[in-house]
Amino acid sequence: MAKIRRISIKSSRRPTIPGTSPGSVQPGEDALKPRISIYTYDKDHFARHEAESHQELKQTLNRFPHYTHWVQIKGLNDIALLNAFRDELQISALVLEDIVNTHQRPKLEEYPSYCFATSRMLGLNKELQLENKQLSFILTKNVLYTFQDDYSDFFDPVRKRLEEENTHMRNSGPSYMMYSLMDLVLDNYFGLISRFSDELDMLEERLYRRPDKTITYDAQQIKRAFVMMKRAAWPERDKLNDMLRSGSELISADTKVFLRDAYDHAIQIIDLVESSKEISSGLIDMYLSFNSNRMNEIVKVLTIISAIFIPLTFIAGVYGMNFARVDPETGKVFPFNMPELYHGDGYIYTLAAMLVIALLQLLWFWRKGWLK
Amino acid sequence: MAKIRRISIKSSRRPTIPGTSPGSVQPGEDALKPRISIYTYDKDHFARHEAESHQELKQTLNRFPHYTHWVQIKGLNDIALLNAFRDELQISALVLEDIVNTHQRPKLEEYPSYCFATSRMLGLNKELQLENKQLSFILTKNVLYTFQDDYSDFFDPVRKRLEEENTHMRNSGPSYMMYSLMDLVLDNYFGLISRFSDELDMLEERLYRRPDKTITYDAQQIKRAFVMMKRAAWPERDKLNDMLRSGSELISADTKVFLRDAYDHAIQIIDLVESSKEISSGLIDMYLSFNSNRMNEIVKVLTIISAIFIPLTFIAGVYGMNFARVDPETGKVFPFNMPELYHGDGYIYTLAAMLVIALLQLLWFWRKGWLK
Amino acid sequence: MAKIRRISIKSSRRPTIPGTSPGSVQPGEDALKPRISIYTYDKDHFARHEAESHQELKQTLNRFPHYTHWVQIKGLNDIALLNAFRDELQISALVLEDIVNTHQRPKLEEYPSYCFATSRMLGLNKELQLENKQLSFILTKNVLYTFQDDYSDFFDPVRKRLEEENTHMRNSGPSYMMYSLMDLVLDNYFGLISRFSDELDMLEERLYRRPDKTITYDAQQIKRAFVMMKRAAWPERDKLNDMLRSGSELISADTKVFLRDAYDHAIQIIDLVESSKEISSGLIDMYLSFNSNRMNEIVKVLTIISAIFIPLTFIAGVYGMNFARVDPETGKVFPFNMPELYHGDGYIYTLAAMLVIALLQLLWFWRKGWLK
Amino acid sequence: MAKIRRISIKSSRRPTIPGTSPGSVQPGEDALKPRISIYTYDKDHFARHEAESHQELKQTLNRFPHYTHWVQIKGLNDIALLNAFRDELQISALVLEDIVNTHQRPKLEEYPSYCFATSRMLGLNKELQLENKQLSFILTKNVLYTFQDDYSDFFDPVRKRLEEENTHMRNSGPSYMMYSLMDLVLDNYFGLISRFSDELDMLEERLYRRPDKTITYDAQQIKRAFVMMKRAAWPERDKLNDMLRSGSELISADTKVFLRDAYDHAIQIIDLVESSKEISSGLIDMYLSFNSNRMNEIVKVLTIISAIFIPLTFIAGVYGMNFARVDPETGKVFPFNMPELYHGDGYIYTLAAMLVIALLQLLWFWRKGWLK
Amino acid sequence: MAKIRRISIKSSRRPTIPGTSPGSVQPGEDALKPRISIYTYDKDHFARHEAESHQELKQTLNRFPHYTHWVQIKGLNDIALLNAFRDELQISALVLEDIVNTHQRPKLEEYPSYCFATSRMLGLNKELQLENKQLSFILTKNVLYTFQDDYSDFFDPVRKRLEEENTHMRNSGPSYMMYSLMDLVLDNYFGLISRFSDELDMLEERLYRRPDKTITYDAQQIKRAFVMMKRAAWPERDKLNDMLRSGSELISADTKVFLRDAYDHAIQIIDLVESSKEISSGLIDMYLSFNSNRMNEIVKVLTIISAIFIPLTFIAGVYGMNFARVDPETGKVFPFNMPELYHGDGYIYTLAAMLVIALLQLLWFWRKGWLK
Repeated sequence: MAKIRRISIKSSRRPTIPGTSPGSVQPGEDALKPRISIYTYDKDHFARHEAESHQELKQTLNRFPHYTHWVQIKGLNDIALLNAFRDELQISALVLEDIVNTHQRPKLEEYPSYCFATSRMLGLNKELQLENKQLSFILTKNVLYTFQDDYSDFFDPVRKRLEEENTHMRNSGPSYMMYSLMDLVLDNYFGLISRFSDELDMLEERLYRRPDKTITYDAQQIKRAFVMMKRAAWPERDKLNDMLRSGSELISADTKVFLRDAYDHAIQIIDLVESSKEISSGLIDMYLSFNSNRMNEIVKVLTIISAIFIPLTFIAGVYGMNFARVDPETGKVFPFNMPELYHGDGYIYTLAAMLVIALLQLLWFWRKGWLK
Repeated sequence: MAKIRRISIKSSRRPTIPGTSPGSVQPGEDALKPRISIYTYDKDHFARHEAESHQELKQTLNRFPHYTHWVQIKGLNDIALLNAFRDELQISALVLEDIVNTHQRPKLEEYPSYCFATSRMLGLNKELQLENKQLSFILTKNVLYTFQDDYSDFFDPVRKRLEEENTHMRNSGPSYMMYSLMDLVLDNYFGLISRFSDELDMLEERLYRRPDKTITYDAQQIKRAFVMMKRAAWPERDKLNDMLRSGSELISADTKVFLRDAYDHAIQIIDLVESSKEISSGLIDMYLSFNSNRMNEIVKVLTIISAIFIPLTFIAGVYGMNFARVDPETGKVFPFNMPELYHGDGYIYTLAAMLVIALLQLLWFWRKGWLK
Repeated sequence: MAKIRRISIKSSRRPTIPGTSPGSVQPGEDALKPRISIYTYDKDHFARHEAESHQELKQTLNRFPHYTHWVQIKGLNDIALLNAFRDELQISALVLEDIVNTHQRPKLEEYPSYCFATSRMLGLNKELQLENKQLSFILTKNVLYTFQDDYSDFFDPVRKRLEEENTHMRNSGPSYMMYSLMDLVLDNYFGLISRFSDELDMLEERLYRRPDKTITYDAQQIKRAFVMMKRAAWPERDKLNDMLRSGSELISADTKVFLRDAYDHAIQIIDLVESSKEISSGLIDMYLSFNSNRMNEIVKVLTIISAIFIPLTFIAGVYGMNFARVDPETGKVFPFNMPELYHGDGYIYTLAAMLVIALLQLLWFWRKGWLK
Repeated sequence: MAKIRRISIKSSRRPTIPGTSPGSVQPGEDALKPRISIYTYDKDHFARHEAESHQELKQTLNRFPHYTHWVQIKGLNDIALLNAFRDELQISALVLEDIVNTHQRPKLEEYPSYCFATSRMLGLNKELQLENKQLSFILTKNVLYTFQDDYSDFFDPVRKRLEEENTHMRNSGPSYMMYSLMDLVLDNYFGLISRFSDELDMLEERLYRRPDKTITYDAQQIKRAFVMMKRAAWPERDKLNDMLRSGSELISADTKVFLRDAYDHAIQIIDLVESSKEISSGLIDMYLSFNSNRMNEIVKVLTIISAIFIPLTFIAGVYGMNFARVDPETGKVFPFNMPELYHGDGYIYTLAAMLVIALLQLLWFWRKGWLK
Repeated sequence: MAKIRRISIKSSRRPTIPGTSPGSVQPGEDALKPRISIYTYDKDHFARHEAESHQELKQTLNRFPHYTHWVQIKGLNDIALLNAFRDELQISALVLEDIVNTHQRPKLEEYPSYCFATSRMLGLNKELQLENKQLSFILTKNVLYTFQDDYSDFFDPVRKRLEEENTHMRNSGPSYMMYSLMDLVLDNYFGLISRFSDELDMLEERLYRRPDKTITYDAQQIKRAFVMMKRAAWPERDKLNDMLRSGSELISADTKVFLRDAYDHAIQIIDLVESSKEISSGLIDMYLSFNSNRMNEIVKVLTIISAIFIPLTFIAGVYGMNFARVDPETGKVFPFNMPELYHGDGYIYTLAAMLVIALLQLLWFWRKGWLK
């Protein structure tokens, strides 16, 4: 499994210049040209259209006034289009700003004629970086608009279900579609948690087989991913709760039954993220403990070898001293200068003494438990 | 006592493919064929039947309409059977999904004609792994259905009590049976806490007798088990509270008296788990402290031996130098080249000096408290 | 001061076999035979009786129907007696179970004809182990029953106050007696906190005078004791709050004034326990920091001695080499082989160089601040 | 990027002498002389005046009674002026004290004829120190007064927007101006978070490229900055919430729509600060782990070199001993004194043995994984 | 600045013997004889009297029935006096006990005819120990009584303000006096926080200039002081909130405006204490990190010196071996025994080889970055 790359949590609001009028819409420089897809359906019919312009979109919607529509706008780099939406849907300038500044927390805002909501789509991109994209919803009587600033999504399962006839989705209005997309977003969280938990397990394996110094870094990265998920999941839960308690007619009672289910999922995600965070912290602690164990082991080797050989080397050093037995100049004999050297078995005795000292030390270390 | 094996907390939802229609029922691949047991009783009668099919079950229930029944379904790998239940009991598709996706948090959902509830059965399997199974309840007027996805359970004590005549259980309806099973599930938590606390005590023993590097790992495993229990016990408490405050007629006032007791147990479990978690953290801290003590001790041995022998070896090295007393070539005498070597007691003095140095150092270390 | 022994927090519920019918009363195997004392008093009279049986107790109570009674039952190993109480007082089987299973959290349960409450009596036993006993109360119109499972108590101060005439206690009903006993239990907490805080101070002394490796262990034990106290004090506070807000007529308004005082004490205990826990954690941190300082010091000694003598020993080693000045075989002279050895002041110069090297290193270490 | 300097969190209340009468106004010694700017505008008109005195200010305001005014007072060292404000606006002495003692938490106080609010302006000054200035607001029917104690501000974007005709700002009353300034203050928080997050990223880079010991210090400084921001952002959020729920007519319903947006920003700031704090803590942990890895590596080098050479040096030492083959005095031959030295291949064998020992040890270390 | 001495948090309740009747008044053994000062004032008049006895006090109060009085009682060692107060003011025995047992948390108790409140006066005594004294208030219609158990106070600013004519204090009743004293107590907290923050800054300085091992201890002491302040400030805040919401007529509406201000101060204190605690924790972490850096440095010196000289010493050892070139006994020549020694440039080559080895190692360490 390829390793997940660096995850950064930046101050991620405001491509706008500070102090600009609230509600001013300034798509980022690298924003993409919008692509509009319209999914039109009722119990018996289903069609997908692409629209090039707001006008074309409007025509399509008007052609099927009694159907449910999901209008998916990908790419936000067209102020004229966005303003057309604003004028048509009568949405507040602040809402439009929130759609374009894709750094909102998950939230629900109810207005008389529409509901505005946002979700955070978390996912790994091709470089295996954790991405945190915004999905914005505008829910009206029979149309659900979704806005996002890049072209990728993971909504194919919903599209497939749309093609099946007489399903709950085909029989329900746009609020059920909104629920389905939100639930799919949450489903992806489970996938990510599972993925990161697998990485944690692999880290734990590595910790036991061959601990290296990148483990702390990797564990920190994973912990950071969980921090990011937690930051997204808490307001997600609050948003779903707001939707459950919403008095708006746009969110049908039937949908609320399913929202309750999504709400349970959000709580489950928070639970999982919290305990996974605890596990990654535990892993970092274990690595530190491992390191301290290794250090103990290394120093033990050093100490044992030093403790055995340093005294022996000293003895050898003593008998390597050149105290003169006979003065070379005068020929005088010094009987007390290293008489051991002139004993026929001095060498044997010395070696034996060294052996005894080494064995006694080994015994001492063995009793201290250092040799195990 | 055999050691408890690895405990993992995985993202544990959704055997279903992401984005499938909510309420779709897809038992896991390794799901087991259902086995149905029916426990039929009133004050005076008690019988146990096995049913092969939903029809057989229905016949049994219809034969004894005024009795209380506990229908235990073990194994969920039969969509036809589950759909039969759905149609008969008029339960929501989402509830059926929650029964089959056995990763729900403990919860209570009240519907006009039935109550749906889940518990988490925690237990050690034969390989001593901590398992976390779901027990689902459907409570109707006189029948309690329980669903679980494997064949094992620990409900024998309830079965025994059922056989006794004129007990409270025999006199009460299915909500009391539901309480009894839930309480038994909670009782098992106490057993697990006791088991893991014993392991903690054994770890502490090991820490004092012979600390080895698996202690941190084992303590982390135990802590992880407590994290898992905590994650199950909190919503368990909330569920019991919901049941206490439920307005549903299906949960009798008489049962609520006992639910209050079970609620107290849930709080006690949370208490115990929290303090046990604190103790296991404390154990990890103590191990680190122990390790640092051992390190101190090891390095102290190294330092003492080095500090004593390195200077002595240096002295021996000095008197092992070959500065010439007499130039071998010219026969010239160098009176300042190591005159000590040509003193009759030079060796004795040197040894004495070495001894004095060693003793002074020992004294210094002793006063520093390093020799204790 | 004798040292407090090991404190264990075990899963401490259920001597009963899991799954037994709730409300079943099974005193533990080592339960003690009950002893019954009856304290009968009003403003002017006071008497103490011992009863051998429930009948005897009943006679005594009936003889003084207009007096207040405190019936103290110590030891619970008599099912017949307990059942007699149950029948007489009409108490629920669950309450009786809570009396016998002495592992309840402090709580208050109100019933139409009586109140049931529990307190946790914390205290050091003769072996200086922290014991956590249950004291159960049943409060009726003019009788307070207390139940505990061993013979010791610390209620002598209350008994003494009972003997004094015309005190508040003699003038008040059984709810005041219940308050007095609960307050005495809380008073004991203050004593324990004071005792453990003294131990903490002594540990801190030891940390400064002669830190040894048992300090972490002792600090952990004390911290564990505070964890246990905290676990008892929080529900104690809740219980007292429930009593303050109780609508039951059995708890007199006059007593509530005093309960408010006890409630303040419970909050004070929680405060003290929390900050004492923080102090014991701080002590453990300080020990780790101390250890790391000691390690620094030890390694500094090793480094200084090694750094000074290893290079000097190397120099001595160089001049101990046997490069031949004159080939013993051929008599050929090698003028470049160690000419230093054949210089008349070679030895003096070498010693001087060694001294200079040693002094330079000492200077370096001194400037690094390692010699302080 | 220049490094951010020391951030200190001091007890920052009360230039007043303790115990002085509340409401007494004593500007600090280094307070600046006030400068008054008046921004007068409605839909069609906009003018900026400077006033030298309170009288001049009053005249200006009176000249345009139907316009909206923003009166910006910078510098508070003029008690007469402040008292003139107090008398004119009828504000409480306590409010005046809060304006002058610029250490208030963000708050809103509603009075019948005006609202008083404070914000904390966080920003880096020229020395790159984090500054924490107070901005006080007094909102009346058509005038917004702002007070601050130095001359710098970052309100140019608002001034620019004021110059544009027919904007929302020009059409709205003073409460919208108050919102705009508060939102600008919050915008600056995002900038700071972004700045400090960049510093964190750079620290992380440094940690991987060349960890030095200032990393902990720098990470602590950044963490401290986040602590300071958190301390400002929490009450900021509460203040905005109070404004949202305010019943005062001075805060228009139209403004509340925008305040909701600012409130969202405050929550986002808290979120970001909390996770950034967690990241900076993680960085400190990673540095410790890095340090411990480096230590391991250093000690490993020491151990490997020592373990290889110390035994070899011992062997060389043994064969450097001077045990006599022939007694120089008597000419007696000692055949057991180091016969190895007199074997024709003794040297070769010895070198070979040394090589074998070194290789075996390298093999051992390699298998232990220490050579990687 | 003199260093602040040891701060201890003891279980600080109950000089009374456990189990004594609540409401019993037993001043501590070292309690001081009461001193009574009476401050009598209205708009135009101000007088200070000293009273020797309760009777004298009563006479003074009766002489000026329409004035406001502040009766300050310092020293509580006079049961008769206290009982006289109890009888005169009709205060509850429990209140009297709370006055004498000077270990109450800050609290407010309202009674029909009086209010009872306590504050914690924190301050440094002459030995620079943090003291935690109780100030008790009894507020009646026109008299404020304050009780404390020693003679010192820091209320001079209030006394001075009393001497000024026609101030708010002179025009307001005793509840304003109570507020003024409480606010002064809080003001002292700011001073303490400032003092301890300065100590923290000095500790940080020391950490950078010359870290020594007392830093952890000092930081722990300061943290402990903050813990103590936090324990006092939280209930202080609650008390002020209770006073704000009090329905008692004794606390005038006018005073409540000022109490709101004091409440803000209490919140500010809590804020400051919390962040200061975080800073002191950060300091301890930084010290540990510093220590670990120092350790790294020390061990690096040891490793570099050892790694360079141990191999060189080994080489010198090899050429110090005495393998015989010529058998002294037989005169046999061994051409393979250390032929290097008999090469004319052997010594030069050896020294060169040593130099090369040393340089290679230095290069290696330099590339590892160990030499910086």
